[in-house]
Amino acid sequence: MGKLLIVGTMAFDAIETPFGKTGKILGGAGTFIGLAASQFNVDSAIVSVVGDDFPQSYMDILKNKDIDLSGVEVVKGGKTFFWEGKYHNDLNSRDTLATELNTLADFNPVVPSDYADSDIVMLGNLHPNIQLSVINQMEKRPKLVVLDTMNFWMDIAMEKLKEVIARVDVLTINDEEARQLSGEYSLVKAANKILTMGPSYLVIKKGENGALLVNHEGMFFSPALPLEEVKDPTGAGDTFAGGFIGYLAQSGDLSFENMKRAVVLGSAMASFTVEEFGTDRLLNLDEREIDVRIQRFVDLVDFDILLTQ
Amino acid sequence: MGKLLIVGTMAFDAIETPFGKTGKILGGAGTFIGLAASQFNVDSAIVSVVGDDFPQSYMDILKNKDIDLSGVEVVKGGKTFFWEGKYHNDLNSRDTLATELNTLADFNPVVPSDYADSDIVMLGNLHPNIQLSVINQMEKRPKLVVLDTMNFWMDIAMEKLKEVIARVDVLTINDEEARQLSGEYSLVKAANKILTMGPSYLVIKKGENGALLVNHEGMFFSPALPLEEVKDPTGAGDTFAGGFIGYLAQSGDLSFENMKRAVVLGSAMASFTVEEFGTDRLLNLDEREIDVRIQRFVDLVDFDILLTQ
Repeated sequence: MGKLLIVGTMAFDAIETPFGKTGKILGGAGTFIGLAASQFNVDSAIVSVVGDDFPQSYMDILKNKDIDLSGVEVVKGGKTFFWEGKYHNDLNSRDTLATELNTLADFNPVVPSDYADSDIVMLGNLHPNIQLSVINQMEKRPKLVVLDTMNFWMDIAMEKLKEVIARVDVLTINDEEARQLSGEYSLVKAANKILTMGPSYLVIKKGENGALLVNHEGMFFSPALPLEEVKDPTGAGDTFAGGFIGYLAQSGDLSFENMKRAVVLGSAMASFTVEEFGTDRLLNLDEREIDVRIQRFVDLVDFDILLTQ
Repeated sequence: MGKLLIVGTMAFDAIETPFGKTGKILGGAGTFIGLAASQFNVDSAIVSVVGDDFPQSYMDILKNKDIDLSGVEVVKGGKTFFWEGKYHNDLNSRDTLATELNTLADFNPVVPSDYADSDIVMLGNLHPNIQLSVINQMEKRPKLVVLDTMNFWMDIAMEKLKEVIARVDVLTINDEEARQLSGEYSLVKAANKILTMGPSYLVIKKGENGALLVNHEGMFFSPALPLEEVKDPTGAGDTFAGGFIGYLAQSGDLSFENMKRAVVLGSAMASFTVEEFGTDRLLNLDEREIDVRIQRFVDLVDFDILLTQ
C-alpha cells in the first residue's frame, strides 16, 4: 500500500448542464482526486484549505474513504472556494459564471509530517507557488511527482510553472495546453519538447477523445469510453488523475507498461464521474463495476492483425 | 481478389494550409478512395464524371494503379468539378473559397457492365440520387454496400438520403453528422438509432480523434496515429474509406472482427494522406511502410491488465 499525498482544492461547485442544475455541491480537484484514488489500496492524505462554512458532512464523505484530512486547514470565519459554471449543449465548452477564491487566495499548504515521506505526490491544479511549496516540504524526493495544471497558469505565471515542471515526473495537461507550453502544433513534436523540460512522462488529456501517454519509450493511447449518458463533465480530469495515481500507488510499479494500465484505470474512473453530477457517481461505485468497465476498455480497442500483405 | 465498384468525384482541388498552398491538383473523393483501395489486392473501377480539361496524366495515375476507368464519363467541352479551400491554423476547420460543380451538376452515373456484379460498392459523398442510381444499376445485391455522406445532404435532401441509408450495410459519417441524423447527442444513443435505419455497421469518423465502429455486437475504436507532420487533411476521410473497403474486398471476410481490422487499415492509409498535399503521399507508398504503420497502431493501444482488484 503506497503512501499518497494530494494537494488540491476542496470546493463548492454549482453546475448547470443541459441535463440539470445543482445548488452548491461538493467539488474541487483535491476532492475528485482523493475520491478516485480511494478506490485503490492506498494510504492517502489531502492538503487543502476550506472555510468554516464547509460542512462536516463533506469532510466525513472523504474521511469515510480513509482519506487523511489532517492537512486540510479550516479557516475560522473564512469562506470555501466556490466555482459556478454552465456547460454548453455539446458539454465540451462552458462559461464560468463565478469564481470566488475566498480562503484559497491565501492558501499556504502545510504537508502533515506523517505524509512528508509519501511515495507519490499529486499536485492538483493550483498556483505554481503552492505546488512548489509542497514539493519543497517533502522529506525526501518522492518516487513519483505528478503535476496537473492549466492554461491559466501558463498565461500568468509561466516561468514559475516551468520551475515546477522541471521538478516533476509526470505532467498532465490537455492538447491545447501542450501546444501552448511547447509552441508546437503537432502533438508529437509538442510532447517531445515537453519531455526535455523535466517530466519523463506526459499525459495529454483530450476529454471525450481519450488520453495520450508519451515518454521516450513510446506512446500509448486510451480512448474515452463512449457512454450512453453524460450529465456533467466537471471533475473528469481530476478523477482521471486520481485513478491514475491511485493505481500506481497501489501497484508500486512505475514502468511504462504499468503507466499504460494507470491511464486506462484513470480513464475508467473518469467515465463514471461524468455519468452523474459532481461526485455522485464516484461515491456509489463498487469494485465489480470498475472491473466491468475496464473490460469494456479492453474490448473497445481489441483487434488482432497479421502483417502479411 | 474482390471486385470493387467506387462512385465518387474526380476533381481539381486548390488547397491552402498553414504549411503551403497548391495550384489546381488532382483531388476528389473517388480519386482518394480508389488510390487507397489500390494498395490492396482488388479489381476496382471508378464511376465518375470529368470535363475534357481533366488531364490524361491524371487518368494515367489511376490507370497505373490498375483502376478501371471505363465508368468515367468525359464530357466534351465540359469542365471538371473544382474545389478550393483554406484550412485554419488548427487544421480542424476550413473555409470553402470556391465550389464549381461544372460537369458534376448533371452527373448521370453509368455502372460498367463488367462491374455490375461487384462484391463491394462504395458510394462516395455525392447527391443521394446519384448514390441510389448506382445501387439500382447493380445486377444483384452486392455483398457489401458502404455509404459515405455529409451534413450538406442531410440539410437539403434528408428524405432521399434516408432511402439510401436504408439500403446500405455500412454508413460512414462524422460525429456531428451522427448527431444530426439521429437527433441524439450521445454517440452511443445516436449509433443505436442509426443502426435501426438500415445499416448493420456505423463508422463514426472523428478525424484526428480516431474512428468508432459500432454494430449490434459491440463497439471498436481506432485512434488516429499521432503524427510529426500533418500538412493537408484533404481526402483523409475518403482515404479512410478506401483503405477500409480495399482491405475488406481483398480479404472477403465481412465479420465484425475483420471490420475492426479494416478500420485500422483505413486509419493507417489516412495517416499517410495527411502527411503531404493532395495525393502525393498515397502515390509514393510501399507495402513495407504500411506494415510499419500498422505496427504503430498495434503498439499505440497495446496494454495488458489483470482484473484482480
